[in-house]
Amino acid sequence: MKLFNKVAIVGVGLIGGSIALAVKKRGIANEVIGVSRRQKTLLLAKKIRAINRGSNDLNIIKEADLVILAAAVSTILELAPQISRIIKKDCVVTDVGSTKKEIVSKLESIFANYVGSHPLAGSEKKGVVNAQADLFKDSLCILTPTKNTNKVVLRKIKKFWEQMGAKVTFLTPPLHDKALSYVSHLPHVVAFSLSSTVPKKYLRFGSSSLRDTTRIAASDARLWCDVFLSNQNMIKAIESFQKNLSNIKSAINRKDKRLLSKILEGAREKRVILNKNDRSG
Amino acid sequence: MKLFNKVAIVGVGLIGGSIALAVKKRGIANEVIGVSRRQKTLLLAKKIRAINRGSNDLNIIKEADLVILAAAVSTILELAPQISRIIKKDCVVTDVGSTKKEIVSKLESIFANYVGSHPLAGSEKKGVVNAQADLFKDSLCILTPTKNTNKVVLRKIKKFWEQMGAKVTFLTPPLHDKALSYVSHLPHVVAFSLSSTVPKKYLRFGSSSLRDTTRIAASDARLWCDVFLSNQNMIKAIESFQKNLSNIKSAINRKDKRLLSKILEGAREKRVILNKNDRSG
Repeated sequence: MKLFNKVAIVGVGLIGGSIALAVKKRGIANEVIGVSRRQKTLLLAKKIRAINRGSNDLNIIKEADLVILAAAVSTILELAPQISRIIKKDCVVTDVGSTKKEIVSKLESIFANYVGSHPLAGSEKKGVVNAQADLFKDSLCILTPTKNTNKVVLRKIKKFWEQMGAKVTFLTPPLHDKALSYVSHLPHVVAFSLSSTVPKKYLRFGSSSLRDTTRIAASDARLWCDVFLSNQNMIKAIESFQKNLSNIKSAINRKDKRLLSKILEGAREKRVILNKNDRSG
Repeated sequence: MKLFNKVAIVGVGLIGGSIALAVKKRGIANEVIGVSRRQKTLLLAKKIRAINRGSNDLNIIKEADLVILAAAVSTILELAPQISRIIKKDCVVTDVGSTKKEIVSKLESIFANYVGSHPLAGSEKKGVVNAQADLFKDSLCILTPTKNTNKVVLRKIKKFWEQMGAKVTFLTPPLHDKALSYVSHLPHVVAFSLSSTVPKKYLRFGSSSLRDTTRIAASDARLWCDVFLSNQNMIKAIESFQKNLSNIKSAINRKDKRLLSKILEGAREKRVILNKNDRSG
């Protein structure tokens, strides 16, 4: 038996489209319904067989057994009340927003059967045109249950992501936002700042070091605007980075080779741990 | 006829070893001689047929027609006087140091037939064990001639890098250091700072965004220490980055979505140019 009969995805972009493709490929539901403001997106999603049917009218999701909110954080928050009036009473709801504290607190007050998800997969590319059925394979998916979370709902969503090929782990919403502020949101702030800093005329001398450090600065600006504004840990993470950068700058300024070596070596050793933890995601 | 009879490479690491492999593969010289402090490096370089013979004694380079200094910036500066007393009068000399102003000014006062090189290729990996014969294929190599540079030497070194598969361009040493401070050295400072900032306990939540932004923080700390200390533009580049980071931070702090969007969108547009310039290097 399939885990769900009808799955509705609100927001058919890179993540929503990839979820749709994966649900189809892995036979997790009988029908995938897509909601997007843009007709072009829906046509493309149908063409690549990511969705069975789609609409820009939310009423299309009324028979869904699982609704996945895959839009920008502010759009998720904006649409939630309307969605709650459309869906069936026993419909399970999750979202894939990159911050969880604000979203979970609002969504669990609106939906009876909700738990927050954050699949740690994605790329700087956007749109259903870049969707991939294997985006979540071997990736980590964080679920953020609270004391209000229905255990049956949690079990179902855990199973859902596992069937998508992800490894599931749990964090409280505040801890999720704290961890992600360092491992994902700060790297994005830094990449955007770095891209802003490099004078255009020197771009032609950029090689793999510049390309890799700034790859995610090609990400959707609107999406990341929402993430930065909805993560209360951002300022703290940025300030911690600023302090470390200042230390390197001051060691360079004072030509303190010993201190500079020590800082760089510490950073290098930590980075090497990340290679050892390597997952494909 | 081969471009050179005997090529000597001082420092058989990732870059020196890759040059050696490329010279052999492309038949640019009849013999490749390696100099390294470490016997293990020389044995490995011989085993992978990067060099014909090697020694930890600089006297081995006395018959070379081309000497390539491929060590850390401070080592290049330290060994140059000794090398000048060993080599033949008409021996051509170049180096592959990542900064050029300090090196070129000292080396052109020491060597009669010198021009500085900076092949924009490499990786966070170190050692001859990671050397690749095609490292320079389709990459950019910057030469930094000055008014003192012998035109015949310049033409030979240009041809040398072209035979290695690189595209050659010219910059004055100060302009080289300015451009590189933004497109390479600053990204390294930023990557080291980012790696320093992420708490170890959260590394397990790191996905491709953290991995890519910090990849080069796994680079050789000693090498980069030298680069940062020998580029007089570093502080200015870091300060320019600090200003852009502060702007993003302050937009987040004031929840100024319009300004934040504008900054991120500008950074995104500039990063997209880099994709269009894509070379494999």
